[in-house]
Amino acid sequence: MKQFRQPHHHRPRKNLLVIGTNAVLTALREGKALEKIYLQSNIQGEEIEDIRKLAHEQNVPVSRVPVEKINRLNVSNHNGCVAQISKVQFQELQDVISFVVEKGEIPLILMFDGITDIRNIGAMARSAKAFGVHAIVIPVKGVGAFNEDAILTSAGALEEISVCRVNSLMKAVDELHLNGIRVFASEMKAESSISQCDFSIPSAIVMGGEEKGIYPALLNYCDEQFRIPMPGGFESLNVSVATGIILYEAASQRLRG
Amino acid sequence: MKQFRQPHHHRPRKNLLVIGTNAVLTALREGKALEKIYLQSNIQGEEIEDIRKLAHEQNVPVSRVPVEKINRLNVSNHNGCVAQISKVQFQELQDVISFVVEKGEIPLILMFDGITDIRNIGAMARSAKAFGVHAIVIPVKGVGAFNEDAILTSAGALEEISVCRVNSLMKAVDELHLNGIRVFASEMKAESSISQCDFSIPSAIVMGGEEKGIYPALLNYCDEQFRIPMPGGFESLNVSVATGIILYEAASQRLRG
Repeated sequence: MKQFRQPHHHRPRKNLLVIGTNAVLTALREGKALEKIYLQSNIQGEEIEDIRKLAHEQNVPVSRVPVEKINRLNVSNHNGCVAQISKVQFQELQDVISFVVEKGEIPLILMFDGITDIRNIGAMARSAKAFGVHAIVIPVKGVGAFNEDAILTSAGALEEISVCRVNSLMKAVDELHLNGIRVFASEMKAESSISQCDFSIPSAIVMGGEEKGIYPALLNYCDEQFRIPMPGGFESLNVSVATGIILYEAASQRLRG
Repeated sequence: MKQFRQPHHHRPRKNLLVIGTNAVLTALREGKALEKIYLQSNIQGEEIEDIRKLAHEQNVPVSRVPVEKINRLNVSNHNGCVAQISKVQFQELQDVISFVVEKGEIPLILMFDGITDIRNIGAMARSAKAFGVHAIVIPVKGVGAFNEDAILTSAGALEEISVCRVNSLMKAVDELHLNGIRVFASEMKAESSISQCDFSIPSAIVMGGEEKGIYPALLNYCDEQFRIPMPGGFESLNVSVATGIILYEAASQRLRG
């Protein structure tokens, strides 16, 4: 196994912040990848409206927070607006799919629904990169930050894999369908076993959080549900372990041709 | 996925401590499962010798520590000796193997070498239980504590699976061989792929730490080395993910018959 550094907890580094409404607006207009924008709760005005509009278009989460939270970032002259720069390069789902298909490869996509634990996200990205996943699709809300800790836990994989941040996972499934990609859902209570799935076709795999699983409406929207058979009589796997197993199975099927 | 509680960091609870040389000696004589014994660095005497001897026989790690470390456990009247009670029930490797064989099952054993991260240990135990592993073999030294945090991360699996703590993993391999069990080693640089391994026979699988892998002398002592094929051009998996994949492959081979 390659070297592994433990993630450490820290505040965002100053050089990873964009400070002030003007600078944030410029960053958005230049299409700079932003992880999150913090807006002071009572701040208003034309610039703020522009920020909110551009952020929505670019799927950048915006948090309204009390000024104390922004002050805790230890920045001055923020005039109520600070953004965190993302070290992960976000891409458009359609662009990634087109690129993969043009290369003559069969798309393999991973979707996260409600995965909040940063270490799990890192380990999942690491497995995704190892097993040839073309893109990870995440929603704007409800998934843990793809931040420096996640990158560390991923052993750098998060900086090398395409990540698509979407406003709605349901709409992303529509987009996958339009591209002829079958959407599989990992669900412990499914009747079919994973070995019955055919991952040799263009495939997307949806993973839900450990406590709640996949959001029911999204689960019903998927084409096929499957479970991992566990003969030990103890039906519980860590979500990053489950993801690794599923991707190993998919990659094995593709290697066998 | 089943409910998952985040591990929290804390001092050992008082009711999980045995306090004082007399009490520790009694616990050892009664065969109570102890996780670790702390001895004040300058303490000596006949009782201490007895404690060291019994601890060695029962594979309980003994740490010589400055008195300040014992005082930090917030106990009084410790007279230089405190032991942590283990919530994991340790068993003899030979007993577990005999029991499994008598049941008519084919042994599947997991060995940890240099796995230090508690969360990885928990996730690995969880996968072990899910995929029908009969025992986890750990050395007295060099593996992270099988403590409450590990139990929490394992979703309780560590309390339900047999754990064998041995003085030497090399001697444990001898014992496995005497029982007709083939010992497989997970090694990224191995020539054979995991799919070439036959896990349907009595099998033990050795996992090494992420940074250093399996200790070279132990690696050479194993019967067969294998790697997990990673077609993504990024050869790195979290060790608990790798363990899950290997156990899934072993269980799948056994299910297929």
